[in-house]
Amino acid sequence: MSYHKPEAKTVQDLKDLAQKLRIHSINATQASKSGHPTSCASIAEIMSVLFFQQLRLNLKHPRDPSSDRFILSKGHAAPILYAAWAEAGLFPIADLNNLRKIDSDLEGHPTPRLNFIDVGTGSLGQGVAVGAGMAYVGKNFDKADYRTYVVVGDGESAEGSIWESLHFAGHYKLDNLCVIFDVNRLGQSEATSLQHKLDVYRDRLEAFGFNAVVVDGHDVEELSKAFHCAAITKNKPTAIIAKTFKGRDFPNIEDLDNWHGKPLGDKAAEVVKHLEGLIVNKNVKLAPKPVPKTGAAPEVDINNIKLSSPPSYKLGDSIATRLAYGTALAKIGQNNQRVVALDGDTKNSTFSDKLKNLDPQRYIECFIAEQNLVGVAVGAACRRRTVAFVSTFATFFTRAFDQIRMGAISQTNVNFVGSHCGCSIGEDGPSQMGLEDIAMFRTIPGSTIFYPSDAVSTERAVELAANTKGVCFIRTSRPNTCVIYDNEEPFTIGRGKVVRQKSSDEVLLIGAGITLYECLAAADQLEKNCITVRVIDPFTVKPLDAELIIEHGKQCGGRVVVVEDHYQQGGLGEAVLSALAGERNFVVKHLYVPTVPRSGPPSVLIDMFGISARHVVNAVNEIIKD
Amino acid sequence: MSYHKPEAKTVQDLKDLAQKLRIHSINATQASKSGHPTSCASIAEIMSVLFFQQLRLNLKHPRDPSSDRFILSKGHAAPILYAAWAEAGLFPIADLNNLRKIDSDLEGHPTPRLNFIDVGTGSLGQGVAVGAGMAYVGKNFDKADYRTYVVVGDGESAEGSIWESLHFAGHYKLDNLCVIFDVNRLGQSEATSLQHKLDVYRDRLEAFGFNAVVVDGHDVEELSKAFHCAAITKNKPTAIIAKTFKGRDFPNIEDLDNWHGKPLGDKAAEVVKHLEGLIVNKNVKLAPKPVPKTGAAPEVDINNIKLSSPPSYKLGDSIATRLAYGTALAKIGQNNQRVVALDGDTKNSTFSDKLKNLDPQRYIECFIAEQNLVGVAVGAACRRRTVAFVSTFATFFTRAFDQIRMGAISQTNVNFVGSHCGCSIGEDGPSQMGLEDIAMFRTIPGSTIFYPSDAVSTERAVELAANTKGVCFIRTSRPNTCVIYDNEEPFTIGRGKVVRQKSSDEVLLIGAGITLYECLAAADQLEKNCITVRVIDPFTVKPLDAELIIEHGKQCGGRVVVVEDHYQQGGLGEAVLSALAGERNFVVKHLYVPTVPRSGPPSVLIDMFGISARHVVNAVNEIIKD
Repeated sequence: MSYHKPEAKTVQDLKDLAQKLRIHSINATQASKSGHPTSCASIAEIMSVLFFQQLRLNLKHPRDPSSDRFILSKGHAAPILYAAWAEAGLFPIADLNNLRKIDSDLEGHPTPRLNFIDVGTGSLGQGVAVGAGMAYVGKNFDKADYRTYVVVGDGESAEGSIWESLHFAGHYKLDNLCVIFDVNRLGQSEATSLQHKLDVYRDRLEAFGFNAVVVDGHDVEELSKAFHCAAITKNKPTAIIAKTFKGRDFPNIEDLDNWHGKPLGDKAAEVVKHLEGLIVNKNVKLAPKPVPKTGAAPEVDINNIKLSSPPSYKLGDSIATRLAYGTALAKIGQNNQRVVALDGDTKNSTFSDKLKNLDPQRYIECFIAEQNLVGVAVGAACRRRTVAFVSTFATFFTRAFDQIRMGAISQTNVNFVGSHCGCSIGEDGPSQMGLEDIAMFRTIPGSTIFYPSDAVSTERAVELAANTKGVCFIRTSRPNTCVIYDNEEPFTIGRGKVVRQKSSDEVLLIGAGITLYECLAAADQLEKNCITVRVIDPFTVKPLDAELIIEHGKQCGGRVVVVEDHYQQGGLGEAVLSALAGERNFVVKHLYVPTVPRSGPPSVLIDMFGISARHVVNAVNEIIKD
Repeated sequence: MSYHKPEAKTVQDLKDLAQKLRIHSINATQASKSGHPTSCASIAEIMSVLFFQQLRLNLKHPRDPSSDRFILSKGHAAPILYAAWAEAGLFPIADLNNLRKIDSDLEGHPTPRLNFIDVGTGSLGQGVAVGAGMAYVGKNFDKADYRTYVVVGDGESAEGSIWESLHFAGHYKLDNLCVIFDVNRLGQSEATSLQHKLDVYRDRLEAFGFNAVVVDGHDVEELSKAFHCAAITKNKPTAIIAKTFKGRDFPNIEDLDNWHGKPLGDKAAEVVKHLEGLIVNKNVKLAPKPVPKTGAAPEVDINNIKLSSPPSYKLGDSIATRLAYGTALAKIGQNNQRVVALDGDTKNSTFSDKLKNLDPQRYIECFIAEQNLVGVAVGAACRRRTVAFVSTFATFFTRAFDQIRMGAISQTNVNFVGSHCGCSIGEDGPSQMGLEDIAMFRTIPGSTIFYPSDAVSTERAVELAANTKGVCFIRTSRPNTCVIYDNEEPFTIGRGKVVRQKSSDEVLLIGAGITLYECLAAADQLEKNCITVRVIDPFTVKPLDAELIIEHGKQCGGRVVVVEDHYQQGGLGEAVLSALAGERNFVVKHLYVPTVPRSGPPSVLIDMFGISARHVVNAVNEIIKD
């Protein structure tokens, strides 16, 4: 594939289109009275060359699995992205003036409410991870020809997440990935730390395993050549380091401070006039390349994922739910080739290595870099190419909270599995204990949170998660717990289980994971003193089975004790309180880990931090007076 | 300062001490039956040279502000850190065998429960940021001679947070910082991605602005020389890239897989015997260098921080709380030279630039790298050297949740200020909206959360936060809100304000920030229909004024409506529910943002997402029937 210089006319057309994209960006942000026209201007030639020379797109079906991927990591330049698609013919140019309006999906930052957007961007530094995930799938699972392009701002390249992803892309030799750095020198509130030190960018990118090409980002010929170089470079991803200017071609605005995130106001007309003067052919029109017939992505079916065999445990067996997760993951992986697992070098603790053992090709080691881990999973799940399960210690997902948050905006279907929850992990101490993970995942709009207590319910949680839209989180525990459900027991999202019940019950206990067993032990002890209590296993914390809790809570005199290996805030306890908010005549005692725990044996810790059977007994004896 | 080769005896002593540290690490993890002896072994020579040749320590007062700082970023190697301090004479060697016991502060990973630890480590990739913060303070505020050393594992160097921090240290030319990379080749579950590619580490570190020195990490002479090189290198931080082996000198264990995080079990005795055989002088004893008299850190007083002048607003003025934050920050900065501000290139949005305008020296621009931003602040606040205020958009703190979580374990006193909360920011859309920030900060043990609604209370929140231990979070809003408090109004943590009250009140409304004003508007409307309601401004969400809410809630028939510009989970609403958990006869309606919002005008959004006065009126009309 030798390089052919574009014809002079093509070059001029691309230049003209770049100016048109600038003008659209100005007009749209004038109409919306907010937005980032200067951040659009610096990438006008990049967008022009990408959309009208490089990207192979399907305008009838923008999410065609065989088409090239494009991610605007610097999401605040959304207006020029919308303008490019409009100029390409996806929707009328006039619609661009609906930018940021309440009834338009042309939002301030891109979201997949638009059919040509794969993931939400706008929280900076996340696009490369997603692009790397797509490129990994393209190269290794789809084995297809589509390429992935990510435009990154220089300001956001200070985010460590980007360097995690660059390392990942370099390590896995993702030569189908091209990252374009828009080095426009200016951040929001001052110049970036590296300004126009292009050699520093180049040295860093080369050291991170990239083919790094420095270009004048406003020269369509240089860009065209660089994209060609990217396409023919094998075994390495390419970074195009584009020297650009913020507000390029905006007289008295270009390369100046204090023009971030502002429409041009009363300068707009003059600037547009100037830009129009730079256009040679006002009627310029170019069509994006179509998607070639060859090298297409295969058809994929990720519906109706099922365990290859039902759970097979004996009641009373002692098995950690984290181990049951690994078993179930391998089982669904056996039944569907698109089930993949990602982990951050904890696979022998989370037991995601069970899928690796089944099929090493479907395990993606992301090493100790949780932000990239999550971003790659989001990318891998895009366009429904894979069913992605991501695991690490529950508490280390806090490292990627922003990525998970953006995952909801991105309408992702990624499944998260967090092991080592709570102080019951023992001696490793508080830095390793997930005590805020339920709170975190509960805030994610549309999320489903499984907190299975035994191996049988864990296997079913994995099966259900694989088929559930949105972010799913499965919380697994380190210690062994007793199998309490028959292998045939059916489980449903939002339906809890009453695991102990008598008509004389005076208090309803709710526990999950290790605290369910503390509740059961407490129930045994209380019964010796002629106090009977009911025990509910919620199975899912979100949605929570409010109906079941209200019904059984009422039968227990409105007395509820919730016990969890989690901090007070945002966990199972507050989920129960939310479920009961509209009910008078309930009283709830909440046992939780009240402060930073310490190192020690699990059983000592759960007692020291107030969530053992002994404390449950005390709570029941207290609440029974209410 | 020319280099003097250490004498042969010193070299042998350092070698012998390294072996003793290995033996202690084995014995301690044998006693605790868990831990990471092989991860200790790879840094034995590094620790020996650091503690017995390089670090200037004060054994009587390990947190002497003038002593050198040491951070073990790879916190799982805690046993060898404890062993080094024990060998240095801080506590008896015999105590090492209390590792990980419930009644010992020698935890599985280091925490400041120990007087020689500044910050908790164990969540990987955070030590360099903290070290950079310390070094920044040492160089720019203390202008003292102490140096900061951070030992980083190669596995954790995949964390992007580390690269954020390396960039920061390079950019600010922190030549008093030395980062030692322990390149022992093996991660937890497999080899690291870079294994022993020392040249790649060197290229990356040089590109990130470091003086990079590659050494044999088991050669005390090479280490000694490298530390000298670090000390004399000006205008650049130094990275020592140490080629090491995991489990070094453990026969049949060294450099082998599957030995991560495991005591040596029945191989321990044999290995210890082998190590003893390598020691020339069994009675070797070296003392750490003392802290020199010259170049000491100045005395600092960060108690009783006060606004330089009281708030001066007029009732009814319209001022955004984010702007009042900037004003207050400058005021406390005027009164105390150790008040510093850090931001991630949003200073003209959060208004932290007000301190920069007052005194550019006390503003630390951290660019768009929130993990490092938080880590640097934690480092800057260590040993009570500064009162650090960190600001960015509230939602971007999710990027640093893990750092904030570790901040609690580190007993940090950093103050976080998150602007642009909720859907009331408007057109920028959901990626920029803080809708989970209260939930996040509420989970932090010991945290204090201010949610001021007007400018007067915001100024007092800033003053209170500056004097409050633990993590403080101040949530500020983008839109202007009305000044409702007199300039003299006193504010107290954990005490809310009843802002509207009649004896006939039938419902208690609780709002904060923009929703307080929606509650007040709703109250006006309801009064026209002869329904009067009480309104409470909680001021702090954590601790929440439970007493006030219960008292006034009861007076309103147990009917409570909580309205917040936040998701349902973990915010003000669930805080109120937790406060009322022990009370029968309350019913709570909770208005919150129920799903991912979109771009649009603020007033349209707060109505569309159910938290406007109209919805409050409806909720009151509903709940009044209960």
